[in-house]
Amino acid sequence: MSISFEIDERVAAIARRTTEFVRDVVIPEEQTCGGGDVHAGPEPLRRRLQEAARAAGVFAPHVGEEFGGLGLDLRDQAVVFEAAGRSLLGPLALNCAAPDEGNMHLLEVVATQEQKERYLRPLAAGEVRSCFAMTEPAPGAGSDPRALATTATRTDGGWRIDGRKWFISGADGAAFAICMARTSGAPGDAGGATMFLVDADTPGLKTVRNIDTLDHGLFGGHSEVVFEGCEVPDTAVLGAVDEGFRYAQVRLGPARMTHCMRWLGVARRAQDIALERAAERSAFGGRLAELGMVQQLLADSEIDIETSRAVLWRACWELDQGRSAAQHTSIAKTYVSEAVNRVVDRAVQVCGALGISGDTPLSRLYREVRPFRIYDGPSETHRWAIAKRAVRAAAEQRDAR
Amino acid sequence: MSISFEIDERVAAIARRTTEFVRDVVIPEEQTCGGGDVHAGPEPLRRRLQEAARAAGVFAPHVGEEFGGLGLDLRDQAVVFEAAGRSLLGPLALNCAAPDEGNMHLLEVVATQEQKERYLRPLAAGEVRSCFAMTEPAPGAGSDPRALATTATRTDGGWRIDGRKWFISGADGAAFAICMARTSGAPGDAGGATMFLVDADTPGLKTVRNIDTLDHGLFGGHSEVVFEGCEVPDTAVLGAVDEGFRYAQVRLGPARMTHCMRWLGVARRAQDIALERAAERSAFGGRLAELGMVQQLLADSEIDIETSRAVLWRACWELDQGRSAAQHTSIAKTYVSEAVNRVVDRAVQVCGALGISGDTPLSRLYREVRPFRIYDGPSETHRWAIAKRAVRAAAEQRDAR
Amino acid sequence: MSISFEIDERVAAIARRTTEFVRDVVIPEEQTCGGGDVHAGPEPLRRRLQEAARAAGVFAPHVGEEFGGLGLDLRDQAVVFEAAGRSLLGPLALNCAAPDEGNMHLLEVVATQEQKERYLRPLAAGEVRSCFAMTEPAPGAGSDPRALATTATRTDGGWRIDGRKWFISGADGAAFAICMARTSGAPGDAGGATMFLVDADTPGLKTVRNIDTLDHGLFGGHSEVVFEGCEVPDTAVLGAVDEGFRYAQVRLGPARMTHCMRWLGVARRAQDIALERAAERSAFGGRLAELGMVQQLLADSEIDIETSRAVLWRACWELDQGRSAAQHTSIAKTYVSEAVNRVVDRAVQVCGALGISGDTPLSRLYREVRPFRIYDGPSETHRWAIAKRAVRAAAEQRDAR
Amino acid sequence: MSISFEIDERVAAIARRTTEFVRDVVIPEEQTCGGGDVHAGPEPLRRRLQEAARAAGVFAPHVGEEFGGLGLDLRDQAVVFEAAGRSLLGPLALNCAAPDEGNMHLLEVVATQEQKERYLRPLAAGEVRSCFAMTEPAPGAGSDPRALATTATRTDGGWRIDGRKWFISGADGAAFAICMARTSGAPGDAGGATMFLVDADTPGLKTVRNIDTLDHGLFGGHSEVVFEGCEVPDTAVLGAVDEGFRYAQVRLGPARMTHCMRWLGVARRAQDIALERAAERSAFGGRLAELGMVQQLLADSEIDIETSRAVLWRACWELDQGRSAAQHTSIAKTYVSEAVNRVVDRAVQVCGALGISGDTPLSRLYREVRPFRIYDGPSETHRWAIAKRAVRAAAEQRDAR
Repeated sequence: MSISFEIDERVAAIARRTTEFVRDVVIPEEQTCGGGDVHAGPEPLRRRLQEAARAAGVFAPHVGEEFGGLGLDLRDQAVVFEAAGRSLLGPLALNCAAPDEGNMHLLEVVATQEQKERYLRPLAAGEVRSCFAMTEPAPGAGSDPRALATTATRTDGGWRIDGRKWFISGADGAAFAICMARTSGAPGDAGGATMFLVDADTPGLKTVRNIDTLDHGLFGGHSEVVFEGCEVPDTAVLGAVDEGFRYAQVRLGPARMTHCMRWLGVARRAQDIALERAAERSAFGGRLAELGMVQQLLADSEIDIETSRAVLWRACWELDQGRSAAQHTSIAKTYVSEAVNRVVDRAVQVCGALGISGDTPLSRLYREVRPFRIYDGPSETHRWAIAKRAVRAAAEQRDAR
Repeated sequence: MSISFEIDERVAAIARRTTEFVRDVVIPEEQTCGGGDVHAGPEPLRRRLQEAARAAGVFAPHVGEEFGGLGLDLRDQAVVFEAAGRSLLGPLALNCAAPDEGNMHLLEVVATQEQKERYLRPLAAGEVRSCFAMTEPAPGAGSDPRALATTATRTDGGWRIDGRKWFISGADGAAFAICMARTSGAPGDAGGATMFLVDADTPGLKTVRNIDTLDHGLFGGHSEVVFEGCEVPDTAVLGAVDEGFRYAQVRLGPARMTHCMRWLGVARRAQDIALERAAERSAFGGRLAELGMVQQLLADSEIDIETSRAVLWRACWELDQGRSAAQHTSIAKTYVSEAVNRVVDRAVQVCGALGISGDTPLSRLYREVRPFRIYDGPSETHRWAIAKRAVRAAAEQRDAR
Repeated sequence: MSISFEIDERVAAIARRTTEFVRDVVIPEEQTCGGGDVHAGPEPLRRRLQEAARAAGVFAPHVGEEFGGLGLDLRDQAVVFEAAGRSLLGPLALNCAAPDEGNMHLLEVVATQEQKERYLRPLAAGEVRSCFAMTEPAPGAGSDPRALATTATRTDGGWRIDGRKWFISGADGAAFAICMARTSGAPGDAGGATMFLVDADTPGLKTVRNIDTLDHGLFGGHSEVVFEGCEVPDTAVLGAVDEGFRYAQVRLGPARMTHCMRWLGVARRAQDIALERAAERSAFGGRLAELGMVQQLLADSEIDIETSRAVLWRACWELDQGRSAAQHTSIAKTYVSEAVNRVVDRAVQVCGALGISGDTPLSRLYREVRPFRIYDGPSETHRWAIAKRAVRAAAEQRDAR
Repeated sequence: MSISFEIDERVAAIARRTTEFVRDVVIPEEQTCGGGDVHAGPEPLRRRLQEAARAAGVFAPHVGEEFGGLGLDLRDQAVVFEAAGRSLLGPLALNCAAPDEGNMHLLEVVATQEQKERYLRPLAAGEVRSCFAMTEPAPGAGSDPRALATTATRTDGGWRIDGRKWFISGADGAAFAICMARTSGAPGDAGGATMFLVDADTPGLKTVRNIDTLDHGLFGGHSEVVFEGCEVPDTAVLGAVDEGFRYAQVRLGPARMTHCMRWLGVARRAQDIALERAAERSAFGGRLAELGMVQQLLADSEIDIETSRAVLWRACWELDQGRSAAQHTSIAKTYVSEAVNRVVDRAVQVCGALGISGDTPLSRLYREVRPFRIYDGPSETHRWAIAKRAVRAAAEQRDAR
């Protein structure tokens, strides 16, 4: 066995089908929703796209075959999700958009068989949507998850959840939430969190507002959600009590990578628009593509995309080997999210006035990618963790001699 | 006489009044228009703000006293406009927003007395608005003005204008346009342009659409405008025939600098929000403001703002000395527009999820500042000009020895 | 077959031996030559190091077994050369330093069996050294190889070479040169170059000076060399007449990658010094490693190293598949050479005054890595090529639909 | 009084004379010392250059007329020192190089009349040199001056100094040192330091080695110095006991700015070499100066230089007003030191192989400027201080409302 960048033929075929599907079916649909603005969650569009994806043989590529998916591992997903990501609507069509995709993975790994049938199966089939209720407004759980303030207290035969969450993506219209609540310890403690499966119609669970954000490409948007005396039975516990932070890592490591895959598709789309424009447009007596500063913008974006892809694949491979890969996923998430921002920014610049107008998708993509440097851990938090691990690894290596 | 950064006491007083006016009157109005979204041009808001500015003694600071203004030179404007720029509505209130402010300057320098009375006086008083119709869609006049394709051909006693313009800021609702059209030569030639004053109701002048752009802070937005057999009399010529490119420089040099002044106010606003947030918010067991990576973001923005202000003041001083100052204004425009983008981007990052939400002005400011690196000459065009001038200057210096 | 970052067990073992060999044998030798200053070419040191490498079982990892090497492909070399690169002397010890390593590869691919025995065998064994005489002072062949001005003209039964070369690494003390000369066409033409094997003692070949450069880590330094009526027989032609530019690509693609591998080792060395220093040193009441801005420097370097390695491995894999991989090698060369510079620069900064002193290897490494952004094609030339290929690829893709 | 960038005519004349003097007299002398390598302190060269500067009427521009100087304030110095800085030897010639220049300023402000006669007069005249002994190896006084570990303890009628200093510029050959020692408190305390004037021949003061550093342009180099039972009389105290940290600020604020002025001259020199090269050299069928990526390098350096000059002048003006200007000097030092590095790096890149050779001054300048980001407070320390002050200022402004 040796280093290889060979893409499995079956996966390559799925990726090709995805590319064609996005080009022929998904991108034309962008016109119907302002370039991919699905914060209001247009349900008919979602149904239509997912049916088409199923027909194209590219639906739910990440889900195990038992639950109707294509059973791809993370490296394979990297290839297919990038192809899907060329349109903001692509991942929605393939049912591999956040947060559902990450929730499916979490449920596959942690849920009981009964929970899988009840929650995973319809989710994987696109019949319902879900959300992941972890983030809280300051001073609660944000970039530091240990600040978790929402509590779940024992009741007779169950739990009572109280707390406020925000930036809960897809909450509006979700059939259920996976809610992270503190079952022991105090805010600041590294332990004591538990995950709960909470049906949307449970009394005491309320979506209080949809937050106005820069990005508009996530189906249902990002909501502020309140749990107020929200009672759930013992069977609502996902996994074991007090093990929530550990499960969060199960979800977040891969979820960060699938985010990166989709963003990379966005970057590739932006760059392709810039390349096309540069090839067509003339200025100062020549094609734009022959001006050195434009070439520099284009080349830097090619470099950003290639390096992003390579480092992302590396992290995916590590996860596929069953390793925690925390250092690799932090590095990939930080680098890719920043690289994607640079690529889209350069594409805007190459296209000039056109780039900041609604006449190309770029002005929407420009807004979409900025939050990626904050979602799933801001760059600063990841850099802090990367440095700590590097210092520790160096110390261990030294001590080993 | 020696280098001085002393601000004249009268100017300092105007700046103080402007700061208070923006804080107490203008910023509260942001709530009424989505944080400063005035692309739809809400006329009552404009009237209300301008009356308040007049009452506060800060109206039309850049206009000569003869036409009702405060008569400030560019260095003085730099101080006052930055204070006004803290709100996207501030320059509108002071009647020193683009494109009117630049048009007033152009009219003061080039127009006949009669033209001044007819166009400048009501414009300076805020009774009407105007637009500057130069930019054309590719392959017309964009970053390369010599590509000018709109033509004005001789008629009996006047001119007939034909052509398409876009990104014409403030065209929707303007009382008149200053239109740049080719009166001799062909696209690509360095000469042969003429400026025309065209009343909005002139037959053949039509606003065909308002362009959807990333920024929303310019009153009336940016429109696509068509001149089709649009006939104007000889008195509509602004300045001399075939001298339009020269006048464009009269307008664009200072206009670039006043743009920078206003943007710098935006940057200062964003940084102040970030500083406040960093001081308040706790994370990882300390105040955000005590985390090294946050300090780096904050420090880099302070550096960007200080260097921007210094280099901008330098360019203003050069212009105030009556020099062309093309190198200084190119450097200031390029640097300030990029620095302002960095500052707002960092403020977003410091504020995290809050920063990309509508709960602070940052997400709007983030969108507003991006086009500045394209408007008024993209950074690449300015860098090209800067390099050419530097190479030429070095050669001249060498030859002089 | 799927994407994999698995390192073959045999290769991993060679890399481990190399790491230990460099740590225990090579790095201590740095003291004897000012941290790795081998521009003066201390022959006894070279012999000593190469014997030790042979004893350690890590000699000539890139050479085919037929010629006494370990027969590693490029991906395998990437792992081993990085380990060797931790010391500027490491590649010299393993006999895989530039320019000999690239020449061995070229000879293995292009030379006749007779030429291999005469030139490759002693070179692979470390008995002699060689140089590659392509680069010329302006306006000759530099970043634009087509500017090749050195000529080879037909004589009776051979060729006569005339021209001036500079930055010919390792020329001083080399047993032979591979000289690139124009056999048809004129400077600026894309064809007409031929490679010649020229023994060092051939009349008319003269090393006129050793150039004083920032870097000092290349055995024998960089020389200026003159060919003046230098006559060689027909058997001196390497490959076919007029095919020199094509062979140059055979050499340069992989040679760029092996350069990157060795530099990556330099970067890793610098980063490890910084990590150790940050862990030990206290400032402002805490360990340096706990200060956020230091963590940012350390994290950015980890990111740079991981992304460099990933994108480099990708390019190596492409070459190992027998593809031209020009886009991948340009991207890897540009990115890695710049990333390595950043990493060393940050390590200097983390170590402060110590970093710019001779008390750590950093100040030497800082000087060594700067030229990498110029050698083997400056970043600008590669970016120009990357952009052109990207534009062309986009056009082809468009036309294919 | 208003913002002005007017240069006083007398100052402009001194600057012109300095420019010509450096061009005609100083730069030719670079050949005699490896481009400006004066770490070994060649005394005849120093004497020769200073005599020539005196003859040219540009000697000691910063020194009060009472002590034989030209009496320029900091803004004036900014203009003249930049001109001097074009050669590494320029400031030495004008007797305004570090550390003597900063020591002269300190003595002018703090010393008694007697001390001025004994130490300042010969120093200002160039008869002797001096050093400033503050920095200590870790864990002593480095970027955090409060870590000061060297002690001065009371003796009968004087003080006994013990401690180790390093990076003491110019110590080798200096006639006296200004030594910073702790007279009360413990390392980490903000107070309790005292400055002492110590003659070089005082028993117990010993230069133990000259440190090998990246830069070689400081006369006498940087030494490690030991004070071991070094006894000085009470008259050796400079200023008041325990007030050393305050005086250090008196010295360091302006000294940082004069450093910046000289570096800016280095940057301008590097850029002029790049401009000349770009204008001369052809590649890819055109002049280098017409290639877009080269233009970008050149333009970015023009921008860096202009912004550096503007922000530096601002800080100088603040200091000239008698303000502490800590924020302004931190910003200017951080920005200018980094900008200068970028400019020299770009000049190297524009010149390619030539740039990293000794055939232009660039490879030496590249080495010289790197330590500037560490000397006089590393960028990280300044950024930390800038952020803290900005947060505090924002809080004060908020409280004031």
